Amino acid sequence: MKINVMTDVLEANDRIAAANREIFDKHGNLVLNLMSSPGAGKTTLLERTAEALRGKLRLGVIAGDIETTRDSERLQKYQLPVVQLTTGTACHLDANMIASALPHLDLSGIDILLIENVGNLVCPAEFKVGEDYKVMILSVTEGDEKPLKYPLMFRESSLLLINKIDLLPYTNFSLEEAKRNARKVNPDLETMEVCCTTGEGIGAWVSWLVERYQARFGKLRRA
Amino acid sequence: MKINVMTDVLEANDRIAAANREIFDKHGNLVLNLMSSPGAGKTTLLERTAEALRGKLRLGVIAGDIETTRDSERLQKYQLPVVQLTTGTACHLDANMIASALPHLDLSGIDILLIENVGNLVCPAEFKVGEDYKVMILSVTEGDEKPLKYPLMFRESSLLLINKIDLLPYTNFSLEEAKRNARKVNPDLETMEVCCTTGEGIGAWVSWLVERYQARFGKLRRA
Repeated sequence: MKINVMTDVLEANDRIAAANREIFDKHGNLVLNLMSSPGAGKTTLLERTAEALRGKLRLGVIAGDIETTRDSERLQKYQLPVVQLTTGTACHLDANMIASALPHLDLSGIDILLIENVGNLVCPAEFKVGEDYKVMILSVTEGDEKPLKYPLMFRESSLLLINKIDLLPYTNFSLEEAKRNARKVNPDLETMEVCCTTGEGIGAWVSWLVERYQARFGKLRRA
Repeated sequence: MKINVMTDVLEANDRIAAANREIFDKHGNLVLNLMSSPGAGKTTLLERTAEALRGKLRLGVIAGDIETTRDSERLQKYQLPVVQLTTGTACHLDANMIASALPHLDLSGIDILLIENVGNLVCPAEFKVGEDYKVMILSVTEGDEKPLKYPLMFRESSLLLINKIDLLPYTNFSLEEAKRNARKVNPDLETMEVCCTTGEGIGAWVSWLVERYQARFGKLRRA
């Protein structure tokens, strides 16, 4: 008898993800699962998003980290509802971890819930958490061939934010090549260029969020 | 009854790693397990190392990738013995994967075997493959707090190469802060600053390799 442990794990995960999704739907939350390599800019994107959404939509955050609560500390000044999950040795967030965070959030006070996954270009892509969309960040210092080398995450994502474009002159990263490689593994993947430190491109990203929210839940009822 | 799948997996892995290690010892191979985030510069380090070791010690490479054989293609021009492992969905190399590569390498013709792990700052640190040392690369664009956020890999490593120091002026990365954070999680961790694209610091890294080889196997018998 062969026991496929991984298949069992993923099936159990998907059931919990579906239950999370029902809870999010009931509360009118648009939920994004934000994934990237370590240091690609997830927390800085959250900071810029918190600033740009102010007065438009109410943001909540679940931040996953192996150790430390640095990310949630960075977000404190924006006075958002934030839950920090420390995963111990786990290299990704799964649906059960997200389920455990939900009782600590007032979901009816949140329009957009951003889930900051553990920095890892591999494992997080395998685990649904109940999100509407997976969004990933690739920084230009990581190289333009990454979609070919880590295809699953690019395949699973709806939007790719290419970050740190201020560093383009100092790298051999080609935006065209990166987009071509991304399209090879996922022809439907939207791409945007941003610089989370200077704020360049953040307007387009926030418009994308607002449009998705409106398409899903109608007008900006709570603005 | 509680079955700890992960403990069983790691114990089985360690047994195979010990068997690999015996094979390496018999052939006089100094073996390094090279780990980093995606795009931190592992393959470029291998290229610089191949150039710098020429005429000193004979280098061999096992390159692990989820998909694509791009890394081994980049190494072809150095005429090294290279085995490329494509791991499918696996986010790390384990001892069994390395064991499966060994019949494809003439180990008696290799002095230093560099194992390029999958780009991932989390999972590879848990799996021994039979190496003498774990070496990791952190690029300055990833941020100086990474030792605190991904402590296991920093704890398991003997040497930390801080790469892309040519980009220091364009980031808020502090070398001092990075080293202080690294020492907090591993007081024995050696650090070196390098730039794999310009070659800065590669001499010190290669001296480190040669010294470790000599300490282990005596004089450079095959030089």
